[in-house]
Amino acid sequence: VSAEGSVAPPGRAMKWWGWGDPDQQPRLPEHAATMLRDELGLEEIERPPVEIDEVRLASPRMAPVLRARLAAIVGSGAVRDDREARVSHAAGKSYPDLVRQRAGDCSSAPDLVVSPRSHDQVRAVLEACDQLAVAVVPFGGGTSVVGGVEPFRGPFETLICLDLGAMDRLVSVDERSLTAVLEPGMRGPEVEAALRARGLTLGHFPQSFEYATLGGFVATRSAGQASTGYGRIDELVLGVRMAAPTGDLVGRTKPASAAGPDLRELIVGSEGTLGVITQAALRVRRAPEKSRFEGWFFRTFAEGAEALRALEQNGDAPDVARLSDESETRLNLTLAGTDTLKARAGARYLRLRGYDEGCLAIFGWDGTATSIDRRRRRAGERLRAAGGLPVGQGPGQAWARNRYFTPYLRDDMLGRGVMVETLETATQWSDLMGLHEAVASAIRSALAERGTPALVMCHVSHLYPSGASLYFTFLARQQQGEEIEQWKAAKQAAGAAIVAHGATITHHHAIGRDHLPWMEAEIGQRGVAALRAVKRELDPAGIMNPGKLLPLG
Amino acid sequence: VSAEGSVAPPGRAMKWWGWGDPDQQPRLPEHAATMLRDELGLEEIERPPVEIDEVRLASPRMAPVLRARLAAIVGSGAVRDDREARVSHAAGKSYPDLVRQRAGDCSSAPDLVVSPRSHDQVRAVLEACDQLAVAVVPFGGGTSVVGGVEPFRGPFETLICLDLGAMDRLVSVDERSLTAVLEPGMRGPEVEAALRARGLTLGHFPQSFEYATLGGFVATRSAGQASTGYGRIDELVLGVRMAAPTGDLVGRTKPASAAGPDLRELIVGSEGTLGVITQAALRVRRAPEKSRFEGWFFRTFAEGAEALRALEQNGDAPDVARLSDESETRLNLTLAGTDTLKARAGARYLRLRGYDEGCLAIFGWDGTATSIDRRRRRAGERLRAAGGLPVGQGPGQAWARNRYFTPYLRDDMLGRGVMVETLETATQWSDLMGLHEAVASAIRSALAERGTPALVMCHVSHLYPSGASLYFTFLARQQQGEEIEQWKAAKQAAGAAIVAHGATITHHHAIGRDHLPWMEAEIGQRGVAALRAVKRELDPAGIMNPGKLLPLG
Repeated sequence: VSAEGSVAPPGRAMKWWGWGDPDQQPRLPEHAATMLRDELGLEEIERPPVEIDEVRLASPRMAPVLRARLAAIVGSGAVRDDREARVSHAAGKSYPDLVRQRAGDCSSAPDLVVSPRSHDQVRAVLEACDQLAVAVVPFGGGTSVVGGVEPFRGPFETLICLDLGAMDRLVSVDERSLTAVLEPGMRGPEVEAALRARGLTLGHFPQSFEYATLGGFVATRSAGQASTGYGRIDELVLGVRMAAPTGDLVGRTKPASAAGPDLRELIVGSEGTLGVITQAALRVRRAPEKSRFEGWFFRTFAEGAEALRALEQNGDAPDVARLSDESETRLNLTLAGTDTLKARAGARYLRLRGYDEGCLAIFGWDGTATSIDRRRRRAGERLRAAGGLPVGQGPGQAWARNRYFTPYLRDDMLGRGVMVETLETATQWSDLMGLHEAVASAIRSALAERGTPALVMCHVSHLYPSGASLYFTFLARQQQGEEIEQWKAAKQAAGAAIVAHGATITHHHAIGRDHLPWMEAEIGQRGVAALRAVKRELDPAGIMNPGKLLPLG
Repeated sequence: VSAEGSVAPPGRAMKWWGWGDPDQQPRLPEHAATMLRDELGLEEIERPPVEIDEVRLASPRMAPVLRARLAAIVGSGAVRDDREARVSHAAGKSYPDLVRQRAGDCSSAPDLVVSPRSHDQVRAVLEACDQLAVAVVPFGGGTSVVGGVEPFRGPFETLICLDLGAMDRLVSVDERSLTAVLEPGMRGPEVEAALRARGLTLGHFPQSFEYATLGGFVATRSAGQASTGYGRIDELVLGVRMAAPTGDLVGRTKPASAAGPDLRELIVGSEGTLGVITQAALRVRRAPEKSRFEGWFFRTFAEGAEALRALEQNGDAPDVARLSDESETRLNLTLAGTDTLKARAGARYLRLRGYDEGCLAIFGWDGTATSIDRRRRRAGERLRAAGGLPVGQGPGQAWARNRYFTPYLRDDMLGRGVMVETLETATQWSDLMGLHEAVASAIRSALAERGTPALVMCHVSHLYPSGASLYFTFLARQQQGEEIEQWKAAKQAAGAAIVAHGATITHHHAIGRDHLPWMEAEIGQRGVAALRAVKRELDPAGIMNPGKLLPLG
C-alpha cells in the first residue's frame, strides 16, 4: 500500500510502539480511509497505543554480579535498565510486535540494554554472558518483521539486549578494489552518507533503510529495492567478522576462493544465533550521477511477469524492477487519489488502450545520463515487445518519493482496527504464477473463514535469472482480542502454500521466530542438524538469540 | 605453457600415469624442447612411466563381509579390485601424483572401486561403510591437482573409491527458469552435449573440462575459463543434494532466500568430506550463436591489470579475460614458434609500437554477432584508453584451439626431467601486483636455493569487481630422487607468500591434501572447528574422504 506522502529525514530514535520518527505521524488520506472502511467492513474506531508509563514491565531479573561485570567492560553509562531503554528494545516491528507494544505488553522486555563500542567489548560481553548463563539478543535498528529481536529467554532467566548502535564507523575504504569495511551499527542513511562522501554507494535500500543497520542487513540476508541491479546483501558481503562466545569466526575478504565451504555464508543469515557481526567488508560501487524511475502497464500480472523474465534472462533488467498484481495496482491507484483530475485522465488513457484492469510496473535505472539512456532503450524494446505500455516518469517518481513511507501508514491502519501484514517468498519463473495464486487464495480463505475477508495484493520486486520474489500485503478487519490468532491463521495458511510449492519461506525478511515452523521444510532435518552442530561449537551454552532461526533443540 | 596443438576429442578413459586420451601423446615441438633444455639446464634424458604390470600394488585389504555387502547394493560387476581399476583410481593428476604414478608407486591404491548408479545406492554404500569403518573417496573424473582423490586411509584399514561415472544423466531441464538438474558423473563434454541438444549451455570450461565431472566442479568450487562471463560453479549451483553417512543434506533449488545460512554453500566446496553430491540443479543459459576470441598487448603486466580492472568495474568485461605476465608472454610466444615468418612479423609490429617486452591478453565473447559486436566495441574503447594494442583474432583463436591441450605437454615435460607445477590464488585489485611479485619471487628463491633455477610465469584469468585471480606456472629441472621435497619447497614458499598477503590459498583448485597446511590461516581456528562440527554431525565416523579439506582432527 502506498499513499503519497513523505516525512522529514529521521534521526535515530524510533517510536517504541510503531514505525519511524516519533515526531511524525502521517495519516491515510480521507478517501483511502473511506475505501478501507467500505472494503474491509471496519467500524469507526480509534485504537491508539498506550502511553509509555502504562506499559507493563517486569522488574529486571539478574544476578547482582552481571551488571557490575558488564559495566566494567562497556562503562556504566552503556548499561541501561531504565523504562525507555527496556521498552524500546522489547520488540521489533512485526505485526504481532506492534499489537503487543501498542497494548502495553512489554512483560518480556530485556533486563538490561548494553551498548558496546568495539569488537573486543562485544567479545568480553559474550564471554561474561556465557559464564553467567545470560541470553543475548543482538539489536541493530530493531526493524525485524519476523520476531528476530524478540527478547525470548528460552531456558534462561536473564536476557540482555546488545544494542550495536554505538559501533557505527566506516573503518576503511579500498577505492581501487571498490570495497569498504563497515561497523554493524551504521544505519542505512549513515552507510550511504559515509560512502557518498567518497563518491561511492552500497546500493542497498530495503524499505527499512532509514532505521535498519548494516549488521542487520548481513545477519538477515536482506535484499533492497534496487537489489535486482546491485545484488542482495549476501552478494555484496566479501568478508565478515563475528564474535562468538567461544571465539571469533572470520570470513576473510577475498573476491573468490575454492578453499572449502564458504564460511561467509554461515555468518550471513545467522540472525545473531551464532555470534555478533562486528565488522563487514562490502562491495561498493561508484555513486550514480542520476536515477530515473518510470511506470509501465501490462494487461495482466502474468504478461508483466513474462516481460520481467525476458528482461532479466537477456541481461537487460533495470536496477529497480517491480510489478504489482491487479489487486495491488487497483489499490495503489485508488490510494494515490482517484479524486484528482490527473489521475482520472490517466485512467481514461489506460482504458482506451485496454489496460484498465492492468498491472503497474515501476522500473528504475542508476548511472550516467548516457548509460541510463542506453539501458532504457534496450529494456524499452523488450517491454514493448512483451506487451508493455509506458506511462511516463510520474508513477516512478511517486514510488521513489514514497519508498520509505509505507510503514508509517501501517501504524495509522492499526489505529483504525486494520490488520496489515506482509510476507514474501521466491521461486522459479516456471511456478511464479502458480505460487502467486496459491498463496493469495490461501490467505483469502483463511481470513474469510474467520469472518474477516481480506484484501490480498502482491508484487514482484526482485528478479533473478532463474526466478523472482513475490511480496504479499494483506489487510483485514482486526479481530479484537484475537489479533494474534487471526494473524497466525493467515500466516500458517500462506506458509503451507509456500512449502507445498517448494518455494522459500522467506526471500528477504529472514526466519526470526515467525518462520520457525517452516525451517525444517526449508532446509531438511539434516540441514537443521548441521546448523545446530555449528551453533553448539560456537555457542555451546546456547545464549545467542535463543529460539530464533532454529527451534530450540 | 601452451604450444599449439590439439588432439582428437577424447573418450572417458584416461592414462593412469598422466593426462588425457591413452592413444594420444603429443610432444613439445623441438625448438621448445631446446629452449627448455637451455633455460632450465636439463640433461638429455627420457624418464618414461613404468608399465602397468610393474606398478607396485598392495593386496586389497578388506573384511570378507564388505565385498558381499557392497555387491548386494550395486551389483557384483560394479565392485572391482582388478589391477587396472585400482591403479587408475590410485591418484589424481597433481605433480606429486604423477611423479608417484610414473614411478609405479600405487601402494596406497583403493582396495575396491565401487560404481553406484543412483542416489539410493550411494546412501546404502555409505551406510555400509559407516558400519564397517571403511574410508570412502568419492571420485569423479579423477582430475584433482591438489590430492583431492588421494586414497589416504587416515585411521582406517580399508578404503574404497566411489566412482560416480555411472551416474551421468541429465535429469531434467526447466527451460522457462533456465535451470537443469544433472547427475554428478557427467563429464564436461557430456554436460555440454546434453544441454546443447536443447539449445542451452552451462558455460563452465575449466582446463580439465574434457575429463572432469559436474560433481567434481561442485565439490571443489571450480572456475572455468569463461567464468568471468558465466560465473564460477558456486554462482551457478542453485540446488544440490548430498548423501551423507547419517542422511541426506539438500540445498533446495531456489533463486534466492533469506532462510538462514545458505546450506548450498556448505556442500559446494566440501570436497567429498561431508558426503557425496548425487544431484545438482544449475543455472544454464541459451547457447551462444558464436564466439569470438582476440589478442591484445599491453606494455606491462600492471598496465594490463589496470585495463582489466577498468573493464570489470564498469561492467564491460568479456566472458573470457586472461592476461599473461611478461614471462608467460615471452614463453608462449617462443613456444608458439618464433620460427614462423608470421610470428616474426608480429614481433616486429609489437617492437615498432613499444610493446616488445609486453604482455599478451586474450579476450573472448559469446553471443550473437550483434551482441558480441556491441560488447567488443565498448570493451575496445576502454582497452585502448588503458594502453592496449589489438593484435587480432590469431592469438585468440590459437588460445581457444589449445585450451585443453596444455596438460598433455606436462607429461612430455615430466618425461624430459622437468618439474612443472601450477598454483593459483586471488586477491583484491589493490594488492594484485604486490602478490604477483611476492609469489613469483618466493618460488624463484626456493628453487634457486636448491640449485634448480625456475621459470616462473603467471596470468590473470578471472575478474571480479573487487579483485582477480593469479595463476602461476613454474618449471625447473627435476631433482631426481628428491622430486617431492623439491616440489614441497616451492609450494611452501608460495603458500607462505600468499598467506602473508592475506590472499586465498586457492582460487579454483580446492584444498585437497596439498593445501591443508594453510587451511587454518585461510578460515581461522574457529572456522576449522565449525566445519569439523558439521562433519561430525553428517559423518560421525569420519569415513568421508579422510584427511582432505581439513587436517585430521
